[in-house]
Amino acid sequence: MKPVALSVRTLRPTPDGVVEIIDQTALPHACRIARLACLEDAARAIRGMQVRGAPLIGVTAAYGLALALTRRDDDQTLAAAIATLAATRPTAVNLGWALARMRARLAALPAGSRAEAAWREAGAIAGEDAEQCRRIGEHGLALLRPLAARRGRLDLMTHCNAGRLAAVDFGTALAPIYAAFDAGIETHVWVSETRPRNQGLLTAWELKQHGVPHTLIADNAAGALLARGKQDKLDAVIVGADRVAANGDVANKIGTYLKALAAHAAGVPFYVAAPRSTIDFSCPEGGAIPIEERDGDELRVVQGLDPAGRL
Amino acid sequence: MKPVALSVRTLRPTPDGVVEIIDQTALPHACRIARLACLEDAARAIRGMQVRGAPLIGVTAAYGLALALTRRDDDQTLAAAIATLAATRPTAVNLGWALARMRARLAALPAGSRAEAAWREAGAIAGEDAEQCRRIGEHGLALLRPLAARRGRLDLMTHCNAGRLAAVDFGTALAPIYAAFDAGIETHVWVSETRPRNQGLLTAWELKQHGVPHTLIADNAAGALLARGKQDKLDAVIVGADRVAANGDVANKIGTYLKALAAHAAGVPFYVAAPRSTIDFSCPEGGAIPIEERDGDELRVVQGLDPAGRL
Repeated sequence: MKPVALSVRTLRPTPDGVVEIIDQTALPHACRIARLACLEDAARAIRGMQVRGAPLIGVTAAYGLALALTRRDDDQTLAAAIATLAATRPTAVNLGWALARMRARLAALPAGSRAEAAWREAGAIAGEDAEQCRRIGEHGLALLRPLAARRGRLDLMTHCNAGRLAAVDFGTALAPIYAAFDAGIETHVWVSETRPRNQGLLTAWELKQHGVPHTLIADNAAGALLARGKQDKLDAVIVGADRVAANGDVANKIGTYLKALAAHAAGVPFYVAAPRSTIDFSCPEGGAIPIEERDGDELRVVQGLDPAGRL
Repeated sequence: MKPVALSVRTLRPTPDGVVEIIDQTALPHACRIARLACLEDAARAIRGMQVRGAPLIGVTAAYGLALALTRRDDDQTLAAAIATLAATRPTAVNLGWALARMRARLAALPAGSRAEAAWREAGAIAGEDAEQCRRIGEHGLALLRPLAARRGRLDLMTHCNAGRLAAVDFGTALAPIYAAFDAGIETHVWVSETRPRNQGLLTAWELKQHGVPHTLIADNAAGALLARGKQDKLDAVIVGADRVAANGDVANKIGTYLKALAAHAAGVPFYVAAPRSTIDFSCPEGGAIPIEERDGDELRVVQGLDPAGRL
């Protein structure tokens, strides 16, 4: 199958000074573009998960700061905008990382010159993110080739969405999968639903855009599939990360731990794909990573249904 | 809180020769009674999961046979009805167990006298099931008391529904929980949603009927809760079983294995509560247990939503 490029970028600054994003809460049933015109738009998009995924959250926050500084760029505005954006989501370290980088670049500049620099720096972060993800794909492909050589194909599992939609391009966990598929390796992906927010639907959607064969499964089914993996039905699990502690502990979407336990029990390799910005060297170990607790209605009100009640 | 009896039994033969069941596909939003008037009604109720849970499937099959024999009770009808009922669900061993017991009781009787005996035998199976579940509660309570003594309360986790709704009364996994609650132990239950069919909603519903405090969680959240269990937030996991092999391997609702791995990793006790009829001594080990694969729409079309799309 020929790879098909995702026709719309997850995030794009426009010449008229707004930032366009794919509203991911409307996927997979509609691909709606939302326009972020001010700081509050950007903060709301992160909080409400119109954009999600650690890398994309960082990039969106950087652009959110640029939007704020376009209106006023004094010290107080800079500090307040950073505080607002930092409070949107607690677990993804890229958010704090991107804001710290923006602050370091902008605080030293005199007021009056910060807005333009902010747009430039946000663009640099976005560009570096895409390049890092492309290289994650290269590194990952090197790990996958020996696995693919055993059976002449690859069956992989992922959790949540750590793909193009979670980043500016390529994604983290999905980058090696796209790289393997594009290299002509026969590839199939087990995509776990990822309750409560069903981000597996986003992964299925973007794999479909790219033409990668995949199967959506209930999160509960991962254990049985991994146990059968011993009989060569599953070569590896690849997930992204919200934050990696200095000792290597990983925080990622709820349910990642269960898959890691089952992969370990089955002897199936389990890879975490993340850029360096996801590593928090100030955090000694996983127990110190703040874990976000969201509203109970995210469980009770099922997301991602079409009008007929289908996922 | 004072225990409240479940006002409707899961299954009840009526004086006019039909069998009334709670249509569990309508729960938790409506408690509808369905009437099974013939063999095909009973088979459809099992296949379509209007009744579910290993013990209740066995009892419903026994009554389904009684319904069939009420119309005709020759050898051919007996054999055909058993074959129809045996094919409804593959994993729950109680189905085959109940049908084998019915056959052994009825095949020896002359045609013309089998219908009445079938109703009597089905009633005996139902009565024994309720008594066995009551005793599972007693045995389980003896295991839970030392756990409750540590902190003066019990926090338990269960998966799927192995409660009153899965049996004639008391349930299997929930029987010890009801027994602990009724004995005055402060009890709270973590109830996993149990995708794809969301039977956790049934567990939440019947715990609510009985007044037992509980919290519905995404299946993915079980790992994080169990890992925290080490810090005394979770005393034990109790689940039911579809079939237990001769070596002790257990088949139960998809996702049970992931919870077992996480409980093991956290050092939290993991109990399987089941009557002897769930043990299949002819099955040497878990790999030989047939695992049911159902339609993909059970994942894609979300069950158990009210008209507002809420679980």
